[in-house]
Amino acid sequence: MSSWGNRVKISIFGESHGAAIGVVIDGVEPGLELDMDDIYLNMGRRAPGKDPAATPRREADKPNILSGVLNGVTTGAPICCMIENTNTRSQDYGNLMTKPRPGHADYTGYIRYHGFNDIRGGGHFSGRLTAPLVFAGTICRQQLKKRGVAIASHISSVGEIYDAPFNPVKIDDELIQRLNQKSFPLINEGVESEMRALIEDARMNRDSVGGIIECCATGLEPGLGNPMFEGVESLVSSIMFGVPAVKGVEFGTGFNITKMRGSQSNDPYRYENGKVITSSNNNGGILGGITTGMPIIMRAAIKPTASISQVQNTVDLSTKENTTLEVHGRHDPCIVSRASVVIESALAIALVNLY
Amino acid sequence: MSSWGNRVKISIFGESHGAAIGVVIDGVEPGLELDMDDIYLNMGRRAPGKDPAATPRREADKPNILSGVLNGVTTGAPICCMIENTNTRSQDYGNLMTKPRPGHADYTGYIRYHGFNDIRGGGHFSGRLTAPLVFAGTICRQQLKKRGVAIASHISSVGEIYDAPFNPVKIDDELIQRLNQKSFPLINEGVESEMRALIEDARMNRDSVGGIIECCATGLEPGLGNPMFEGVESLVSSIMFGVPAVKGVEFGTGFNITKMRGSQSNDPYRYENGKVITSSNNNGGILGGITTGMPIIMRAAIKPTASISQVQNTVDLSTKENTTLEVHGRHDPCIVSRASVVIESALAIALVNLY
Amino acid sequence: MSSWGNRVKISIFGESHGAAIGVVIDGVEPGLELDMDDIYLNMGRRAPGKDPAATPRREADKPNILSGVLNGVTTGAPICCMIENTNTRSQDYGNLMTKPRPGHADYTGYIRYHGFNDIRGGGHFSGRLTAPLVFAGTICRQQLKKRGVAIASHISSVGEIYDAPFNPVKIDDELIQRLNQKSFPLINEGVESEMRALIEDARMNRDSVGGIIECCATGLEPGLGNPMFEGVESLVSSIMFGVPAVKGVEFGTGFNITKMRGSQSNDPYRYENGKVITSSNNNGGILGGITTGMPIIMRAAIKPTASISQVQNTVDLSTKENTTLEVHGRHDPCIVSRASVVIESALAIALVNLY
Amino acid sequence: MSSWGNRVKISIFGESHGAAIGVVIDGVEPGLELDMDDIYLNMGRRAPGKDPAATPRREADKPNILSGVLNGVTTGAPICCMIENTNTRSQDYGNLMTKPRPGHADYTGYIRYHGFNDIRGGGHFSGRLTAPLVFAGTICRQQLKKRGVAIASHISSVGEIYDAPFNPVKIDDELIQRLNQKSFPLINEGVESEMRALIEDARMNRDSVGGIIECCATGLEPGLGNPMFEGVESLVSSIMFGVPAVKGVEFGTGFNITKMRGSQSNDPYRYENGKVITSSNNNGGILGGITTGMPIIMRAAIKPTASISQVQNTVDLSTKENTTLEVHGRHDPCIVSRASVVIESALAIALVNLY
Repeated sequence: MSSWGNRVKISIFGESHGAAIGVVIDGVEPGLELDMDDIYLNMGRRAPGKDPAATPRREADKPNILSGVLNGVTTGAPICCMIENTNTRSQDYGNLMTKPRPGHADYTGYIRYHGFNDIRGGGHFSGRLTAPLVFAGTICRQQLKKRGVAIASHISSVGEIYDAPFNPVKIDDELIQRLNQKSFPLINEGVESEMRALIEDARMNRDSVGGIIECCATGLEPGLGNPMFEGVESLVSSIMFGVPAVKGVEFGTGFNITKMRGSQSNDPYRYENGKVITSSNNNGGILGGITTGMPIIMRAAIKPTASISQVQNTVDLSTKENTTLEVHGRHDPCIVSRASVVIESALAIALVNLY
Repeated sequence: MSSWGNRVKISIFGESHGAAIGVVIDGVEPGLELDMDDIYLNMGRRAPGKDPAATPRREADKPNILSGVLNGVTTGAPICCMIENTNTRSQDYGNLMTKPRPGHADYTGYIRYHGFNDIRGGGHFSGRLTAPLVFAGTICRQQLKKRGVAIASHISSVGEIYDAPFNPVKIDDELIQRLNQKSFPLINEGVESEMRALIEDARMNRDSVGGIIECCATGLEPGLGNPMFEGVESLVSSIMFGVPAVKGVEFGTGFNITKMRGSQSNDPYRYENGKVITSSNNNGGILGGITTGMPIIMRAAIKPTASISQVQNTVDLSTKENTTLEVHGRHDPCIVSRASVVIESALAIALVNLY
Repeated sequence: MSSWGNRVKISIFGESHGAAIGVVIDGVEPGLELDMDDIYLNMGRRAPGKDPAATPRREADKPNILSGVLNGVTTGAPICCMIENTNTRSQDYGNLMTKPRPGHADYTGYIRYHGFNDIRGGGHFSGRLTAPLVFAGTICRQQLKKRGVAIASHISSVGEIYDAPFNPVKIDDELIQRLNQKSFPLINEGVESEMRALIEDARMNRDSVGGIIECCATGLEPGLGNPMFEGVESLVSSIMFGVPAVKGVEFGTGFNITKMRGSQSNDPYRYENGKVITSSNNNGGILGGITTGMPIIMRAAIKPTASISQVQNTVDLSTKENTTLEVHGRHDPCIVSRASVVIESALAIALVNLY
Repeated sequence: MSSWGNRVKISIFGESHGAAIGVVIDGVEPGLELDMDDIYLNMGRRAPGKDPAATPRREADKPNILSGVLNGVTTGAPICCMIENTNTRSQDYGNLMTKPRPGHADYTGYIRYHGFNDIRGGGHFSGRLTAPLVFAGTICRQQLKKRGVAIASHISSVGEIYDAPFNPVKIDDELIQRLNQKSFPLINEGVESEMRALIEDARMNRDSVGGIIECCATGLEPGLGNPMFEGVESLVSSIMFGVPAVKGVEFGTGFNITKMRGSQSNDPYRYENGKVITSSNNNGGILGGITTGMPIIMRAAIKPTASISQVQNTVDLSTKENTTLEVHGRHDPCIVSRASVVIESALAIALVNLY
């Protein structure tokens, strides 16, 4: 299902080459004055294009708010946002119906939906469906902002080129604000040229690269969440793995915590200005599924773009024979930078369900 | 909440030092003849002790089936399993009420429940609550087995000592059966002594170590699951992060897929004996949230046991001062081996929801 | 929340005088060829107007399918249907913001949403929101039809004028088909003029009348549903009470069963053509929450239209004083006939969740 | 499923003649000091027996609290209550396996669970399963009481003998307290002897009678609940129809509102002591799914006890022939009085989910 949530529910609809994509968000608090510039900025950060940050308001992806907002203020009723699809080139996808693209959901969708799925541009499985997710997430962020919660992310890695990590115990507001403006967000901007060169190299080789997004949330009070299956990590990961191309999710020190000793990984408590904090934050702000009050730190692994224009081995489902496939069209050799705001949005939707 | 699921729902209850722990499982298929030996074997694999496999039926952890089973066969009504707590030494936990143990949920539980949480032995946050999870998971496995689905796991790593990985495209039944019998499951048993030495070293240093569990499921037909937020990865991760000490979950090549090129990470299709398979399995048997029919491969990062007997820095919540804490009692320096069957069980519960 | 369901989920959005209303339906089976004439017919039965059946395709209420349907066939992805609002006369609702209309949700919405709710035409609480419900319900009916399940309803009463009841053990297909075409469906059409006269009398007195819809579903196999809280009656009633103006729901003989003896109310079993049937159907086709295979019979009580143009006592929330209110505009003195297809639709959505 | 809820979730387990019945309640607020006398009183009101109010603490139905309560105070963790079954006479149910009792769930359970259901005493469909519902409901009532919410019910009718109704705009605390103590609660106690005579007459005729429970909740603030499918009526009815024998649920004036004119049924607003109230309460304290702040008034129709000792027509599922059935054993000729506290409990569980 393309629905998620409990207190705030989202229901995403649409296909890459259909009439429109969009989302219904149910449970948004009434009286929230929407910051449309912020919405356009975030949707621009996700939108494809050479330098997306420069064109924040692409008419093609204009969010059309159909309900739930009156005079720019939320009413509490469900918000439906529709984004019309334009400039879709369906003819590019002719032979995909029977020749599934490796790494895509063409084959699994074909089996799941008995061949009735809309294959054009990936249909409902398209990365384009993250546009309404960013819309919904940005509204949730604005709701969280009123509670002092801020979210930011950066490109932790592209291939094997790494940015500096967040300081897990203290994340400056200025850093958050700087990252929030960027379509290629980095803590250490010195690695940008090297990352871009790697992406360009992949493009020249008709190939693609993946990477890791590190995302944080600050300002959360301690005591949010629930034990076991409705813990913060469960909530967050269940929406994160709904983002196409995510193959791993970790919190705090994540997989590397397995290489530590307990005496290192345990985050000692101490008082600072009358408030309980931890000196380290290997648990990423979450213990027993419940927030500690320290920043939430998480990382999502983004696989290399599945659409590459090299010849690939596949099958022909109609003839039941092995064959090859060469996908035409312009493809993004690296979606990691565009994924940053998607991960932030997904985190925001998860966290707003804690209140 | 300690409830999870949709078609099969589980609701876990109990505290480490309360009267009993247990689980209600709603939605189990009627007519399933329970294999109690299998249940005792799995619960034994999870139970603490030197060589747990040797004592599969510890009376102390005997599962008491209160409902849903008639003459050893499931009726379709909810199954309640109760496990009475015995031999609990509550006096060990006196000062934890105000001095939260680093790495545990003492502090977050205290805030979340306004100090009313049962702190003894971690209360509802205790790893002991995984015993009913194993009970529920084993029943789900038996249900899956009827559909030809098998689940197994091994200790992928303890600290920096690694076992061999699963062959992601072909996992032999014999390997699965061998691993299923073990309380310290390894593909390459040659690393066992080295792993055990590392664990013993941690114990001697009053410290602990973590590790990674790699888990697989074979025999799943293609086309199970849903796009986006009810995809297999979302379902699986949401229950996995409900297992105490899990800090990361990844599928297929996981975080390492970010270092690959798309031409490497895309899994090419081909026909084998009239069936569509993939030559590699970097996506861990899941594309677009839906099964490909290849083995599901996933890994969970288990942090070092939080309970260590070294002196640790913490706070006193009653006096609001910094202090230190020395936790007494016997503690398991490494829970990774015992976690293996818990991860298998959680995977089984998630997968049974796909049918 | 305006979301409902489990296997098939609907999420309704929109306000009476906003840009659009609509629904996202997630979980519709793939490969269903939509019968658009049937959709227009049902939406026409619900639409306001003198003789709605005569104008089945009112452009104003044209359903715009944005997703989930390709070349007229469902793909399995979420279906979004949008209906643009036109010809809305917002100026009629000026003083309602502070003077809540008796019998409407103006006051409760005001409190619930801290005054941010869209009051125009009832906003999200408007009966107009049943249009997308009929759209969704008709798709579910078409899905049920493939399984041999038919749904029909009639106006059981308007005020104290009663139609003949369904024969609860045998409902002819011809009757179902006849009722399905009608905007004023009656088993005994001889009572139509009397009912219409009562409605006209209410209109002349600037008043309104209520009534009862009796609805049936035939062709359900036995054994569908679950015990206790996910029984058929629980599912059906939870969506029925989401229909504005419904104040009571009963199954089988309903409230009148309380006047019977057990020897009368128990439905005896017997074999007919090798199939188990019941000689009577006081339980409305449901025992223990599970279908018996007999027709499902239910009734919904529809209160008199709250909008009447008589002067009514109310309060002024801004001045905190008692006052009176005279609502202008054309109002439907009886919505019972239009509600029939809404009740049918809600039943269809509930029942499709059983498969 | 036998699970219900969202913020407070209950999961009921057990069979009439199994080892135990019980419930897990997840989401109870921490720090609630349980009033065990109140729990015993309510469970006694439900328990079978000549004069149940006189024996509030029957050992046979003693609730065993296994978790979630420490020193009599809730911890916030799931509460499991187990009630052991004793004195079960399974031999009475020998031939029911193939001869379904009319009016019971024997046949539907047989089909639903492919004959694996536990038929003894109705198994999981037994009215006995309302004992844990009363336990859970009483805890929810104690939670509501802290917020000033009180719940009471009375026997509105047995057969065609009627008690006086609640005054829907003003229900005295003394009346509530009086009714809360009774196992045969009536507003006008003058009708008790007539009701009891009717019940006795049914018993003498080896027959049974039904009736109506009217239930109220006072002290709810306005603005609770949600529009459409998560409205108060939807929540309440979905749990009410999970109570065995309930065939109808109505709010406010209910089905009789259909005989009124809008000018009568609309509840006019006015200020009283600075608070908005309604002069009448035909809507039962709910408009648009949201509380008005007036008492919630609802009625549930309870069908005559299905178990009667007269010879009844039924089928033999093994021979596929028509046959007759004579059920032995003591049966309650009227469960209406015992149902009163069950309806109150179900209402409490529903309402606690609004906070």
